[in-house]
Amino acid sequence: MTASDIVDRVLAGQPRAVARAITHAENGSPAAADVMSAVYPRTGQALVVGITGSPGAGKSTLVDRLAVHYRGAGHKVGVIAVDPSSPFSGGAILGDRIRMKSLVTDPGVFIRSMATRGNLGGLARATGDAVAILDAAGYERIVVETVGVGQDEVDIVKMADVCVVVLVPGMGDDVQAIKAGIMEIGDVFAINKADRDGVLRTEKELENMLTIGHRDDAWSPPIVKTVATADQGIPDLSAAIDSYLAFLEANDTLRAGRRERIAAQRIVDLLRERLLGEALARLGPGEFERLTSAVAARERDPHSVVAEIMRGGQDG
Amino acid sequence: MTASDIVDRVLAGQPRAVARAITHAENGSPAAADVMSAVYPRTGQALVVGITGSPGAGKSTLVDRLAVHYRGAGHKVGVIAVDPSSPFSGGAILGDRIRMKSLVTDPGVFIRSMATRGNLGGLARATGDAVAILDAAGYERIVVETVGVGQDEVDIVKMADVCVVVLVPGMGDDVQAIKAGIMEIGDVFAINKADRDGVLRTEKELENMLTIGHRDDAWSPPIVKTVATADQGIPDLSAAIDSYLAFLEANDTLRAGRRERIAAQRIVDLLRERLLGEALARLGPGEFERLTSAVAARERDPHSVVAEIMRGGQDG
Repeated sequence: MTASDIVDRVLAGQPRAVARAITHAENGSPAAADVMSAVYPRTGQALVVGITGSPGAGKSTLVDRLAVHYRGAGHKVGVIAVDPSSPFSGGAILGDRIRMKSLVTDPGVFIRSMATRGNLGGLARATGDAVAILDAAGYERIVVETVGVGQDEVDIVKMADVCVVVLVPGMGDDVQAIKAGIMEIGDVFAINKADRDGVLRTEKELENMLTIGHRDDAWSPPIVKTVATADQGIPDLSAAIDSYLAFLEANDTLRAGRRERIAAQRIVDLLRERLLGEALARLGPGEFERLTSAVAARERDPHSVVAEIMRGGQDG
Repeated sequence: MTASDIVDRVLAGQPRAVARAITHAENGSPAAADVMSAVYPRTGQALVVGITGSPGAGKSTLVDRLAVHYRGAGHKVGVIAVDPSSPFSGGAILGDRIRMKSLVTDPGVFIRSMATRGNLGGLARATGDAVAILDAAGYERIVVETVGVGQDEVDIVKMADVCVVVLVPGMGDDVQAIKAGIMEIGDVFAINKADRDGVLRTEKELENMLTIGHRDDAWSPPIVKTVATADQGIPDLSAAIDSYLAFLEANDTLRAGRRERIAAQRIVDLLRERLLGEALARLGPGEFERLTSAVAARERDPHSVVAEIMRGGQDG
């Protein structure tokens, strides 16, 4: 398939073309930029929901149930699971996870895991591209789920229209710790596993924290209790997500501000990746390894090496 | 102080100069590159210990106790706490945390929190610079602690000589989830809060996981049980850290490989930040905002905008 064929088929909503386009985006192949430029004007229709929270909070099950809920409402649903990968092997460790058993045979659902490839970044950029491809292909609800709560993952979830932060009861110190990283990105909070002891205390702690928080949009994030494994609370979660969207849509300035922040992030992510790739590609064979060895041996320092690379290696 | 003054005083081990040099590094000020180039040849003496693990695992207390232990052995100790920051306000949320009460008046200990500044990255680069500054200033033990376990934080901890992953008993599903992100970077594992129920089960699960893991250096990471709040297990943790270092030092190829991987990461982090900063600085006033608005309105797509920025904005 040529880039133009892929674009036509993506816009016609063909899942295989969507999968292929996302693979191009992941690999940063030459066709990717053409595909992305062509599909981008057709984006902006989907509701993009970002879901993050500590490992073990039951996010995957919650996402599964939310996707089923959206299917029940007649929407096409895309799910992107952003998995961390081994920094050494570079593989997607969760790729073999059996996800979303109930949905995997439903043609109205597209599921994709995205993983970090190597050290050169690009996961946020590739995730943004995948969201745009699904959006252009007519998926009306796109759920982006991250495994962890690191800065990288927070940056990815920030590109959603609505961010859901998932907690579990009895986290104790964890609520405090999590607050540091992701509290301010939560437009909606879900306390999952809400059949466990301590749910009221966690809810109270969360309410207190939200009281002292300062959002620049004056929104009071709703707190929803869910038991994803028992399919409880999912309509409430969906309603809470919609309520934030309605709030945004009632306020043009906020809506525009959020869209511009997302656009700025997309530009920066892509620019950073392209600039680095281009600079490294300019180096001669073995040059990067030579410079690395010199730095490791303390014969050179990283700052002067980088200055040399940026000058195009003339004095290398 | 000129850059040269700062360098002289850093090399003489003066804490105020160290603090100022780190601030330059954080801000990426023009003096920073000069300072870093000058101090870098004097680095490589310190033992750099990276400590990561889930929020709530008690890492801060563990770091405090380890620092006290190192002080007791007569070492100067540097502690760098890598805090996530609010993606919206850009401030260091944990900056106000009262850390290390027992050490804060000890002139042989230097404590610093580092936080993400804005969206343009640079935290890993700044943390690497701070480690180099402390190393050159004669701090013999440098502990780098991260709050979370995201990819960004994993990348930072990877730059340590020895990585400690901290778990707590009874994590259940969490051990599995954590495995995905950080299992392979743990040279040493600490099960903290080891006076809690479930410690043996967690230890067993961890052992099983380490059995199926595949490290490229054939090291079997030791598992140490600690109760940081009661100051238990800290000498064992220190000994486990030393044992990995001894293992590395007995194998020149491994040691060199690790140093080269760290050097490569440092070069890439710095290069990425510099290239992005330079490209954005080339844009005219208001240009980035204009491009961002066009992308937000779907009048332009991010890929063609980035191509334009990389051409130097000639067709802007």
